Amino acid sequence: MEGHHHGKTEVAARSGSNNKSGLVLRVLALILTLAASIVVVTNKQTKVVPLKVFDSLPPVNLPVSAKWHYLSAVLYFLVTNATSCGYAAVSLLLTAANRDGKSKHLRILIFVLDALMVALLFSGIGAASAVGVLGYHGNSHVQWKKVCNVFGKFCHQMVASIGLSLLGSVAFLFLVMLPLISSA
Amino acid sequence: MEGHHHGKTEVAARSGSNNKSGLVLRVLALILTLAASIVVVTNKQTKVVPLKVFDSLPPVNLPVSAKWHYLSAVLYFLVTNATSCGYAAVSLLLTAANRDGKSKHLRILIFVLDALMVALLFSGIGAASAVGVLGYHGNSHVQWKKVCNVFGKFCHQMVASIGLSLLGSVAFLFLVMLPLISSA
Repeated sequence: MEGHHHGKTEVAARSGSNNKSGLVLRVLALILTLAASIVVVTNKQTKVVPLKVFDSLPPVNLPVSAKWHYLSAVLYFLVTNATSCGYAAVSLLLTAANRDGKSKHLRILIFVLDALMVALLFSGIGAASAVGVLGYHGNSHVQWKKVCNVFGKFCHQMVASIGLSLLGSVAFLFLVMLPLISSA
Repeated sequence: MEGHHHGKTEVAARSGSNNKSGLVLRVLALILTLAASIVVVTNKQTKVVPLKVFDSLPPVNLPVSAKWHYLSAVLYFLVTNATSCGYAAVSLLLTAANRDGKSKHLRILIFVLDALMVALLFSGIGAASAVGVLGYHGNSHVQWKKVCNVFGKFCHQMVASIGLSLLGSVAFLFLVMLPLISSA
């Protein structure tokens, strides 16, 4: 078990633990992006708000709804999470099938797609967060009023979803970092 | 030059070309994120706009400016680009100093930071794009009016900056993918 043999055993053991942590991270990424998607899709709040329909008449109390597909940034956020979730499921099956690491091409394809998911998820998180900040604080320079004082529950649920998505994207980030760190 | 020797030469040649494309990509990332930062910082537009100061009086023509630091998403976008640009410069020096690849720890540190830059840049691009879409189209559901019909030049310059930043982040993405692809 010295020298050459020792080296081989070590590499095999390390590759094994790499595979295991890779599977755990992939399952985590799948669950977190799925949860983020569900939290977005189920997000809806209806409130009765005084609205001016005609300028000459006093405001009328009307029920107004906040839905996830009203803002394109939230829609994009959902698409990134749903895509990552679907990819995590497919890649989980592929890595499980390629457990011995025989197909190098498949390993590289999964690595490249993992890296793309990091980019995709973080762009979605950035988009949803930017609109979230506007919703919470508004912006006086462009005269966009805050809306989270009215649709508080909707905004809170969006924050929760962004948090879940962030954890999921960190899982993908670790998946990308894993091969090189373990090969060192 | 057969067998063992041939293998070593091939690995060395491949590592050399890997280093070269790595350096080119890093210089590209540096230039592109620097350009994106400059385009944002120099972005300013002043227009005379009719504004209602008092509700009872007719609107007054006032000069109104659009500046990059008015929107937190654009500020964040600038921070991500400036950070990536500074990191690209430092990592360029470090990889040049570590050209023979002797220090594995340094190599891993740079790889991890490259991956973090991908996440950082894409979140900034997402944030700036989300606010850009609102600026171009507005959103009737939350009553945020479009502003790019007034500040057209400002918006176009932001789009150019987002494009440059996207190219820079793709350079970082390739930097992350390079080690694993070349090791296969």
